[in-house]
Amino acid sequence: MRSVTAFAPATVSNVGCGFDVLGFALESPGDEVMARAVDRGGVVIEDIAGDDGRLPFEPGRNTASVAAQAVLDRAGSRQGVALTVRKGLPLASGLGGSAASAAAAAVAVNALIGGGATPEVLIACALEGERVGAGSAHADNVAPAICGGLVLVRAANPPDVIRLPVPTGLTAVVVHPDLEIETAAARAILGDTVLLRDAVQQWANVGAFVDALHRRDFALLARTLEDVVAEPRRAALVPGLGEIKKAALASGALGCGLSGSGPAVFALCTSPNVAPAVAAAMRQASALATGGSPQVYISPVGSPGARIVA
Amino acid sequence: MRSVTAFAPATVSNVGCGFDVLGFALESPGDEVMARAVDRGGVVIEDIAGDDGRLPFEPGRNTASVAAQAVLDRAGSRQGVALTVRKGLPLASGLGGSAASAAAAAVAVNALIGGGATPEVLIACALEGERVGAGSAHADNVAPAICGGLVLVRAANPPDVIRLPVPTGLTAVVVHPDLEIETAAARAILGDTVLLRDAVQQWANVGAFVDALHRRDFALLARTLEDVVAEPRRAALVPGLGEIKKAALASGALGCGLSGSGPAVFALCTSPNVAPAVAAAMRQASALATGGSPQVYISPVGSPGARIVA
Repeated sequence: MRSVTAFAPATVSNVGCGFDVLGFALESPGDEVMARAVDRGGVVIEDIAGDDGRLPFEPGRNTASVAAQAVLDRAGSRQGVALTVRKGLPLASGLGGSAASAAAAAVAVNALIGGGATPEVLIACALEGERVGAGSAHADNVAPAICGGLVLVRAANPPDVIRLPVPTGLTAVVVHPDLEIETAAARAILGDTVLLRDAVQQWANVGAFVDALHRRDFALLARTLEDVVAEPRRAALVPGLGEIKKAALASGALGCGLSGSGPAVFALCTSPNVAPAVAAAMRQASALATGGSPQVYISPVGSPGARIVA
Repeated sequence: MRSVTAFAPATVSNVGCGFDVLGFALESPGDEVMARAVDRGGVVIEDIAGDDGRLPFEPGRNTASVAAQAVLDRAGSRQGVALTVRKGLPLASGLGGSAASAAAAAVAVNALIGGGATPEVLIACALEGERVGAGSAHADNVAPAICGGLVLVRAANPPDVIRLPVPTGLTAVVVHPDLEIETAAARAILGDTVLLRDAVQQWANVGAFVDALHRRDFALLARTLEDVVAEPRRAALVPGLGEIKKAALASGALGCGLSGSGPAVFALCTSPNVAPAVAAAMRQASALATGGSPQVYISPVGSPGARIVA
């Protein structure tokens, strides 16, 4: 029986100032989805591994199967598909887990049916999965999970996704405290409005962030890595966030903040040589605050996106 | 008696998506300020021309004298200065008139005392003038009036001003309807908060605007030239704004919107060849809506900033 397996990486969204619009792909971890052609039409979830039995098998509620169905629908295909989802990403981590599963499923099913969908179509399909998984349809995880790199989502529907340049050496450190935060709850905390003066500061920083990437200006980049809108309201959800950020900066990071809605915390470094010291300091601060065993990932900023692996 | 005369240009601020943070200089019109060394300390306004007698002579209330005093204070100078202000800019036009007078005064006085202030210091000084002139201290007019070019104000205090690249050929058309709008009133209409979803759209557009400039991507630039925050609330202040925008786009402009708080309306064009048709269409639409005799300016985007002229 024909099958295709795709991998999609973890992603850091928001990236300081870019709430709901900036995101980049990590090298690892990631999720794998195997799509198998079956006779009976529709999409079913055959197996899920790595989730401790917590993710739903109902096709209409699982981010991977919803994305897979969207790919079939857009291609006008009645192919039956059975999915096996292997979560490499921790749940509710702020690392784009639902986006990774949706992206891997979309890419796998598109290959299975020889669909030839563009990245933008795959993003739109994965976004449908993201909507059931994360409770909202922002594309700052799905777009980098599909495209790789560091992207700016100018518009989610239809996707208008800009691949931003990444200065050589720019390296991400991600620490995942031993905690979970549900994205939907972290969004509810934000409310519907923001102070105009905070919004102005935020878009000044987003513009400067993009300029700093184009000009490889790390000093400016460091000044832009601040979220005055979402992170202040979410900070209380992550014990020790202030200490983790201080530890990162003191060890040489350009900036540091929540990855997505947390609890994962990312830092950017000018080079991979700086990253191990930053990672050690952040891990220590996180362990002190939360206990448990924080996981740490080091990765080039803007690693490759979803791809066929088998 | 020693004297120095400086010119500072009109500026288009906001530039679609960049409320309070983006601005560029026009070639003309502009204001001139002559600073004359006098024996008695402090700053006085000797004469004001081109304002129909409407601008204040009190040194603490005039944007030019406040900026001049700030330059003297920062330099620790007790030089007496008499200013003559020649308004080339229409009052309350949305073209940065108070910023132009403040910028010209700051540059003239700095030269008069051999102050050697950096552009950032001159911006900070002119901003003090802008505060009394416009009722708020955003630097998106003052910064391009001083620096020229197309700038992003990442922070106003202290100034963190980024000179953005301008694609060859990018040309501005500005139409000034026969109306006045007081900046302070146009700000009050905005309120203190904004919808989070509108703010997200705005910073996505600001980031994409900067990217489009770096990559000379006019199609993307056109998609970013939209203000979902300030302009919708101010549109009613400018009769025919919708028609002027439609006329600009139908004649080949990339985008069109309020200049600052209006009533001036700017459009961006890919080349100076496109500009005359856009200008004619905008002027006609404005005259139909408002009557009177709209003024029209065509200028390269990002012309030079304030400079000594005598």
